[in-house]
Amino acid sequence: MRIGILGTGVVGQTIGGKLVSLGHDVKLGSRTATNEKAAKWVDQQRSRASQGTFADAASFGEIVFNCTSGMVSLEALKAAGAANLAGKVLVDVSNPLDFSHGMPPTLSVCNSDSIGEQIQRTFPDAKVVKTLNTINTAVMVDPSLVPGDHDVFVGGNDADAKLRVTELLRSFGWRTIIDLGDISSARGTEMLLPIWLRLMGTFKGPTFNFHIARG
Amino acid sequence: MRIGILGTGVVGQTIGGKLVSLGHDVKLGSRTATNEKAAKWVDQQRSRASQGTFADAASFGEIVFNCTSGMVSLEALKAAGAANLAGKVLVDVSNPLDFSHGMPPTLSVCNSDSIGEQIQRTFPDAKVVKTLNTINTAVMVDPSLVPGDHDVFVGGNDADAKLRVTELLRSFGWRTIIDLGDISSARGTEMLLPIWLRLMGTFKGPTFNFHIARG
Repeated sequence: MRIGILGTGVVGQTIGGKLVSLGHDVKLGSRTATNEKAAKWVDQQRSRASQGTFADAASFGEIVFNCTSGMVSLEALKAAGAANLAGKVLVDVSNPLDFSHGMPPTLSVCNSDSIGEQIQRTFPDAKVVKTLNTINTAVMVDPSLVPGDHDVFVGGNDADAKLRVTELLRSFGWRTIIDLGDISSARGTEMLLPIWLRLMGTFKGPTFNFHIARG
Repeated sequence: MRIGILGTGVVGQTIGGKLVSLGHDVKLGSRTATNEKAAKWVDQQRSRASQGTFADAASFGEIVFNCTSGMVSLEALKAAGAANLAGKVLVDVSNPLDFSHGMPPTLSVCNSDSIGEQIQRTFPDAKVVKTLNTINTAVMVDPSLVPGDHDVFVGGNDADAKLRVTELLRSFGWRTIIDLGDISSARGTEMLLPIWLRLMGTFKGPTFNFHIARG
C-alpha cells in the first residue's frame, strides 16, 4: 500500500520504517521538499521510501499518518491540503502537548474537545482514526517490547476506516485493539498523557503500556 | 482504627462497610447530624458504625476519607473544619465530574490543576493522599472482582501518609499499588475519568480496571 507520513520526527520515522519493512511504499512529508532528517531516513530504508512536502506525502498516500506534534498538526494538515486528504483514512497519532509553560507539559486542548476532533472538524472529508497516541514510539511498532497483555485504542467516526487501521495495527503485532467509538473518544486517550508522563518518571523509562483488565 | 468518612453515597457506604468488616470504627458524615442513607447504613453494619455531621466524622477519624463528589468536596471539607483535619491523613477518592453540561460529564478542573491539589492547598495541615478514584466502587474494596493483574495509584506529598494508605489498600486486597509521587499526580489520575467513562460504555459495565504492563 502507498502510505504518506506527515512529520519527520522519531514517531514518523519509526512508523515509516515499520511500514517499509512490512512491504509498504512510504513517503515522509515535511515543511520542505528536501529535509535532512527525512533524507537520512530514506537512505536507511534502501527501497520503498521517499520524501517530499506535506502535500506530496498526503497526495502519495492511500492512507495518511499524522505524526506531527499536536500543537502544529492543524497547520501541517492545512499545508498537506484538504483535497489530498479527502476520502482517505487519516491516522492521527498526535498529542496536544504544550511545553511552553515548562515541565510537565499541559494539553493545549482537552476536557470538552481534543486535537483528534479538531482535525476531523477541520477536514470533514477525511476519515480520522485516533490511535497509538498512548504508547511509546518503540512499543507502537513492536508491542512485544512490553511483556504480557496490553492494549491499543482506536477511535473514529468511520467504521471501515477503523477496520483498515485495525488491520495495520495487527500487522505491527497488536493483539488487543479496543474500539472506543467515535472520534470524541480522542479526549479520553489524549487525556491519558499526564499520567503517562508521570508513569515514565516513576518507572524511569517509557517502555510500558496500559492494559484494561476486565471482570 | 477510628475512621471518618465524608459522604453517604455509594462510595462512602461501600468503603465504610469494608472498613467496618475489617474491624475499624467508622463514622459516616453528611451535611446533617441525622441522614436517612447514613442511618440505614449504620443499621446494616450491626456494630462499629455511627453517623454524624461532616465535622463529627472528621473529628472522630484518625484517618478521614473524602467520598463526596469532587464538585462539592471543598465545601464539604470546609464544613468538616480545617482543625478537625489538621495533621491527619485525608484520603481523597473524589473526581471533579461536572454533569451540568450534559453527558458525558466534563471535569470542573483539570490539566494545570486537580481537585486533589485544591484540597491540599486549602487544607495545608492535612496530609492528602489521592487514591482509588480511577476504580469502580465495588472493585475498590474487592479487587478480585477483576481477574488478573491490575493496579491502584496513590499520590501525595507526605511519604508516611502514603504508607498508611498503602497498608489500608493492602487490607482491601490490593497487590499492585503504584506511588505516582506528589499530590500534583492527581491531575493524571483524575484525567483518566474521560477514558474510564468511555470504556464503561464500550464494555457495558464498570467492572474493569487499569493495569500498567511494564517492559
